Amino acid sequence: MNNTFFTPAEFKRRWDAMADIAARSEYDALLFFSTECEPANVRYLSNYWPSFETAAVLIVPGQNPVLIIGPESMVYASANSAIPEIIQVMDFRESSQPDYPGSRLPTWRDITAKYGIKRLGIAAYPLMPHVIMRHIAEALGGFDAIGDADSLVRPVFISKSAEEIEALRRSAKLSEAGFKAVLEAVKPGMTEVELCGIATAAMLSAGAEATGYPVWCCSGPNSRQAISRPTLRRICEGEIVHFSVGAKFHGYSTSIGRPIVLGKCPSETLEFMQVGLDAANLTVALMKPGVRAGDVAMQVHDFIRSKGYGDTILYGPAHGCGQMECEYPFLETSSEYTLAENMLFMQDMFLANAKMGFRWEDGVLITSDGAVLLSSYARRINII
Amino acid sequence: MNNTFFTPAEFKRRWDAMADIAARSEYDALLFFSTECEPANVRYLSNYWPSFETAAVLIVPGQNPVLIIGPESMVYASANSAIPEIIQVMDFRESSQPDYPGSRLPTWRDITAKYGIKRLGIAAYPLMPHVIMRHIAEALGGFDAIGDADSLVRPVFISKSAEEIEALRRSAKLSEAGFKAVLEAVKPGMTEVELCGIATAAMLSAGAEATGYPVWCCSGPNSRQAISRPTLRRICEGEIVHFSVGAKFHGYSTSIGRPIVLGKCPSETLEFMQVGLDAANLTVALMKPGVRAGDVAMQVHDFIRSKGYGDTILYGPAHGCGQMECEYPFLETSSEYTLAENMLFMQDMFLANAKMGFRWEDGVLITSDGAVLLSSYARRINII
Repeated sequence: MNNTFFTPAEFKRRWDAMADIAARSEYDALLFFSTECEPANVRYLSNYWPSFETAAVLIVPGQNPVLIIGPESMVYASANSAIPEIIQVMDFRESSQPDYPGSRLPTWRDITAKYGIKRLGIAAYPLMPHVIMRHIAEALGGFDAIGDADSLVRPVFISKSAEEIEALRRSAKLSEAGFKAVLEAVKPGMTEVELCGIATAAMLSAGAEATGYPVWCCSGPNSRQAISRPTLRRICEGEIVHFSVGAKFHGYSTSIGRPIVLGKCPSETLEFMQVGLDAANLTVALMKPGVRAGDVAMQVHDFIRSKGYGDTILYGPAHGCGQMECEYPFLETSSEYTLAENMLFMQDMFLANAKMGFRWEDGVLITSDGAVLLSSYARRINII
Repeated sequence: MNNTFFTPAEFKRRWDAMADIAARSEYDALLFFSTECEPANVRYLSNYWPSFETAAVLIVPGQNPVLIIGPESMVYASANSAIPEIIQVMDFRESSQPDYPGSRLPTWRDITAKYGIKRLGIAAYPLMPHVIMRHIAEALGGFDAIGDADSLVRPVFISKSAEEIEALRRSAKLSEAGFKAVLEAVKPGMTEVELCGIATAAMLSAGAEATGYPVWCCSGPNSRQAISRPTLRRICEGEIVHFSVGAKFHGYSTSIGRPIVLGKCPSETLEFMQVGLDAANLTVALMKPGVRAGDVAMQVHDFIRSKGYGDTILYGPAHGCGQMECEYPFLETSSEYTLAENMLFMQDMFLANAKMGFRWEDGVLITSDGAVLLSSYARRINII
C-alpha cells in the first residue's frame, strides 16, 4: 500500500469503533459515502481518496470492512486501500456517465444479499446522490430501510487519536511552509492565483500530498468573501490581501488564515485587523475542556461587539477539523456540546464590512491544559 | 464581475438555448445543479464556481435566470456571477451542516411558488443529493414532479461556441506550460507530488485560474493507474513516469497526458509507449465530421490488438471535454452518435499491462477539415 503513515492498528481501531456503533444501532450495516472533494469518510476508513469517481466503505458487524469503488479505479484503489476487499459498482462511475461496454459489475442487490443487509445506515448522508440512494432503496425494498447515520458516527470522528493529532500537527507545519513562501515572494502586481501557485508548490515540495482545499488569496474588495477562490486580479499596496493556505498530510487538512497589507496600511484597516486578531486570541484562550461551546462563541462575539464591530460577524469563531479542514462540530452561539480533550478545531475568525474583510485562522488542539495552537507562523499584523 | 472572459452575449446565448429547451419540454423549469468538484453546469450558465457549498441555476422560460447558492457565499457569488438575481437556500450549505443561528432563507416551496413551477427537470441529475431532491419533491408534491433533464440539455453543452473554443485553446496552451515546467525540472529522486506542485505553480503563474482536475504524476507501478493521484514516491530512472497535467481557463479544462522515461529506456517499454502514441495519432486522424464515433473506437482498438496489446485496453480512445476535462459524450465502441464540427474531445489513449501503463492525451477540435490538436508540446517519445 502506498502512503502508509497510519498503522494497521489505527485502521483496525476505526473499523472496530464503527462496527461497534453499527452493532448497537437499528441498522445491519453502515455505508460511509465519499466524493472527490468530500473524501473524509472513505479516506478515514480505507486510506483511499476517490478521484473522478465516488466510493464508499461498508461496515458490517462481525465481518471485514469492504471498500466499494467505481469501474475505473481498481488499480489506483488497490495500491492505496487499507481494506483488502474491494468491490466495484457501476453507480460509482463518473457523473458524466461513461459507457463500459461489456462490463458486468455486482448490483446493490448482490451486495445486500451477500452481507445479509436489510436495514442500512448511511454516513455522509447529505452527500449521497438521489440516483444511488434510489438504487439502494430498490435493493432493500424501499426508502424506509435506509437511514441517516451521521449523528451515530460523529463521536468517533470528533475524538482524535494520537496518530490523527500527529497528522494534523504535520499538516499545520506544511501549511506554515506554504504561507512562509507567500510572505517571501509577495509583491504588488502579482495575481491572486500566482500567489496561490507559490503556496501550493511550497507545500507539495515540503511533503504535503495535496492542498487541503482550493487555497485562496483574495485582495481588495475580494477580501470580503468568506468563501472564495483566487482570481486573476493583481494585488495592490494599501489594501488587505487575505490568504487561506492549507496543506493535506495523509488525508488530514488544516489551514492558516492571515491578512497582510503591502506598503502603507490605513489606520481603519489596522484597527479592524487588530480587533480580529484579539478576538482570535480570545477564542483560543477560552477553549478549555469542560466549557460549553456556545459560551465561547457568545463571549467572543460580545468582545467584537464591545469594540464596535458587531455587524462584521458572519459566523461562530471555530469549527471542527480533521480529514476536512471544516468538519462537524461548529462552534456557534447555539452550540450545546462541551469541549473535551483531544477535540481539534480550526479557530476561524472571519470578519467583513462593506469595504474589506479577513480571516485569522489556525488549528487548535484541546488539551487538559487548554487549547494549543498547531500553527503560529506570522500570526501577527503583517505590514510588509 | 470578476473574471469576465466571456461576453454578456455568450451568457445570453446559453440562457436562451436552455430556456428554449425548457419551453419545449414537459417541465416548467430546469434546475442545473453543481458541486465544488463538479461545477460545470452552474459555471456554464453563471460564471460562478461553488466552493465548500453547492449551487444551482434555475432557468424558467420567459423569465430571467436565477443563481441559487448557499448561506455563506453571497459576497463571493455576487463578485463572480453573470446572473444578477441570486437566492440563498439552506440546502446548499456545506455538507458538514453548519448551524446559522437566526438565519431565515427561502424554502423550495417559496421558490417554486414564486416562479410558478409544478414540474421541474434537473440537469447534472446524477450529482443531486437525495436530501435536496426530497426537499424539492416535497415542495412539488412528490418525486413524480421531478425528472432527469440531462439528455435534453446535452446538445447545448456538446456543440461549442467560438468563445468556448477559444477558452479551451487557451487552457491547452496553459497545460503545455505546466508540462514544459515539469520537463525542465524533472530529475530522479523527486517525489510525484513535488513534480505536480511545479506543474501547478507554472500554470497558475502563466494565467490559469486553477488546475482542471487534481493533476497527477504516477511512476513505476503507479503508472498502471487509469485514475490516480500523486504520492510521495520518489521517481527512478528506467521506469515510466506518467504525467496528467491540466489547466483551467475561466472554467474550461483540457489536459495533457505524457509518459516519460529518465535514463535508459528498456526496449519493451519503448515499444509499448510507441504503440500507444501510434494509436493516439490514429485516433486523431480518424475523427472527422460525419464519422460514427463507435467506428473510430473500433478501428483504434483493432490497431492496438493487431500490435498484440489488446489486453492493455481499458476504455475508448476519446471523451468529451469542456468545463470538465471529462464530459459527455464518450467515444466507445458502443457509441452511436456522429462526429460533427465544433465538437471538442480529449483524445485519451490509456494503456496498461501488469507492470506499467501510460496515457497519451491532448485536446482535439472537430473542424470541417478533420480533427485539430489543441496541444502538441512534447507529443513524442520523451527519454531524458
